[in-house]
Order: sequence, then C-alpha cells, then structure tokens
Amino acid sequence: MKLYSYWRSSCSWRVRIALNLKGLPYEYVPVHLVKDGGQQNSDAYRAINPMRTVPTLEVTEGGRVHRLAQSMAILEYLEERHPSPALLPAEPFLRARCRMLSEMVNSGIQPLQNLAVLQRIKAELKGDDKAWCAYWIDRGLAAFQEVALETGGTYCLGDTVSFADVFLVPQLYGARRFGVDLQPYPLLTRIEAACANLPAFQAAHADRQPDAVPA
Amino acid sequence: MKLYSYWRSSCSWRVRIALNLKGLPYEYVPVHLVKDGGQQNSDAYRAINPMRTVPTLEVTEGGRVHRLAQSMAILEYLEERHPSPALLPAEPFLRARCRMLSEMVNSGIQPLQNLAVLQRIKAELKGDDKAWCAYWIDRGLAAFQEVALETGGTYCLGDTVSFADVFLVPQLYGARRFGVDLQPYPLLTRIEAACANLPAFQAAHADRQPDAVPA
Repeated sequence: MKLYSYWRSSCSWRVRIALNLKGLPYEYVPVHLVKDGGQQNSDAYRAINPMRTVPTLEVTEGGRVHRLAQSMAILEYLEERHPSPALLPAEPFLRARCRMLSEMVNSGIQPLQNLAVLQRIKAELKGDDKAWCAYWIDRGLAAFQEVALETGGTYCLGDTVSFADVFLVPQLYGARRFGVDLQPYPLLTRIEAACANLPAFQAAHADRQPDAVPA
Repeated sequence: MKLYSYWRSSCSWRVRIALNLKGLPYEYVPVHLVKDGGQQNSDAYRAINPMRTVPTLEVTEGGRVHRLAQSMAILEYLEERHPSPALLPAEPFLRARCRMLSEMVNSGIQPLQNLAVLQRIKAELKGDDKAWCAYWIDRGLAAFQEVALETGGTYCLGDTVSFADVFLVPQLYGARRFGVDLQPYPLLTRIEAACANLPAFQAAHADRQPDAVPA
C-alpha cells in the first residue's frame, strides 16, 4: 500500500496510526501542501485525488489500483479488510458512540481548520485564521470531552484503543498549534498521554515523518 | 425511535431518508435552530446532545435510552442493525467509494455551511455568508461529480440507492438555497431526479416536515 501524506495533516496522521495499529506496512509518499502553491493542486495529484486532499491510500489488488480518499472511509475500509486488532467496539451502541466521537473531530472540527479554509479566512475575509481555528477547536473539544466522560477509561472507550483515539490525538496537536488552552480538558490530555506510550502512535507522529519540518 | 430534527437541516434530512428507505417508523421531534436563540442551545437539548446539533436519534432498547448523534454514525448504526435494504455496496472497494462520496459532503462541504459557522462569518468577520457557502458547495460538488462519474448509473453507485445518494440530495437543496449554479453538474441533478421518484426521498424532503416553513 502507498499512502500520500503530509506530515502535519491530521487526516493523514489518522490513517498512519490505523495502519500501524493493524501492522500494515506502507510506502510513504509526501505531498507538500504549501510548497509550489500546494502540490495537491498539481495536475499529477488531481489525477490521483480529484478532491486535492491528503491522505490518499493506494491499494493494488488483483492487478488493479484502487485509490481511496477521506480518512474515515479509509479507516472503515481498513477495519473491514483487516479486522484485527479491531478499532471499533463490537457492541452496536458503543460502535455508534465511537463513530460519533470520531465524527465530532472529522466533520465537527477539522474541516474548519483545514488549509484551504484558513487561506480563505485570511485572504478573502481578512480574518484572524488562528483565532478562527482556536474557537472551533475549543468548542469541539468541550463537546468531545463531555461525551467521552461517559465511556472514558485509559482511552476514549474504556481500555481499548479505537477510532476515537485515532481522531483525538492529531486534533490535540492541532489544538496546541493554534494556541488552544488544554487545561479544561484533563480527560483528553490523559488519553493522549496513554496513546503516546504506544509504538503505533509514536511512529505516526507528525514530527517523525520523512517530510517533517519540526519547529 | 425518536428523531430530533430540523426540517432544513441537511444532516437531519439524511437520517430521515435512511429511516424511510429501511422502513423504520419514528417519532419526529422538531428542534428549531433559529427561534429562541436556537432551541439546540437550550439546557434541555444540551442534556440530550452536548454537541448542540441535530439530528439526534433516540433508540430505546432493553429499557435503556441510547442517544446517537452525527448523521454518519447514525447511518452506519442503522446499516448494521437493520441491514435490509443495504445502503452500502457489498464489494469492499465500492463500499469505500460510497463512504468516500458521503464524506465529501459530510466533512467536505456541510461543515462549512452549517448555521454556527455562517453566523460567525457574518457577525465576527463581516463576511458574505451566502458567497462563502456557495464557494465551498461549488468546489465540493465539482469533486463529487468527478468521482461519481466513474461509478454513476441511475444513482451514484450504479443502479442501487446508497449512502452517497442520501448525502447528495439534501446537499443539492442547500446548493440552490445558496445560489450555486447547478448547470455544470448534470450527473448530480439527474441522480437527484431519480431519487425524487422514490417515496422514501419524497417523505424525507425538508418541505414536507411538520416544522417546515417553505418559501
């Protein structure tokens, strides 16, 4: 498998964690979201992913190349094709809660902090893109923690790592980047610390990617 | 089941379509997103859904009340518990494409047009909220159509209704509302017309809900 990724993209990061947790090796293909006006906007990359987003997971099977985009769709695919270890609980309502927490980040927070949106906030509306992000992240994490309090153990759902943790960890990195105070979210930072002990999360960290430019 | 819904909320609309397609009866509980400063912000509703969003699906099972939020999480729950008729294809890569198209709307377009975001664009940034929406919807539909062209038949994925159609139809209503020209998207409007022939889609339409205030 080949993963088109950008080190700091939280959506790419999610997929890296899941691939690592499931023990699936992959080739890392960096797509620089800022250089050259954004390499995701090149004709070459648009042919791979018309949404011009990362990640794209390329899977070759039976001589056919399949290209999957959208991190949630990729995670669900991985869960179905490589069910062990499971990253979704077995119990139906817990599964729903796991996906609910994941979507609180996936559709509730991240889309408002993505690069194209920030560029438009700044260039078109002359707004403060950092303050914009901080507002939505803070609001989203407050709701996330409130829901996670009902099921949280070592991880978001008891003591087993799940999709919810996979979504949470890169979002907390984003929160710090945009200056969000994480003091009000002790449950979330405690879960983050637990995840940081796991090799799968360590290897997926933004700063450890081949294209990383850490501060 | 009880569905907390707002007639014009595209996320509520998706769940109404899925419930209808699967033949599941439900009680409709309107939550007015604008009246009284937004009924979703009331203490009563926050106790039901800390995210302060619609829809919330309330399922009582074995004497316990479960409250599910996030339309994608709800749809996946319905698909698992009420598998027939299936709204996801059986083939793994088609399933992934179906979820990918769905997420292009769910996380790629809708979060940028939701009410809280528009209010902030207008009040904080003094921006044109309608133009903001139109930009993201147009950009998102272009990518959606490009991907859907590879699999489109009567519906987004061949001749069987799926999640992708469930996400597309309410998004097209939103597109018109925000003045997006749909001329460049003949595949999408053709699929929309096919869906409009199905009673499940007809009954779920915004204008036919008990709390509707059609123009």
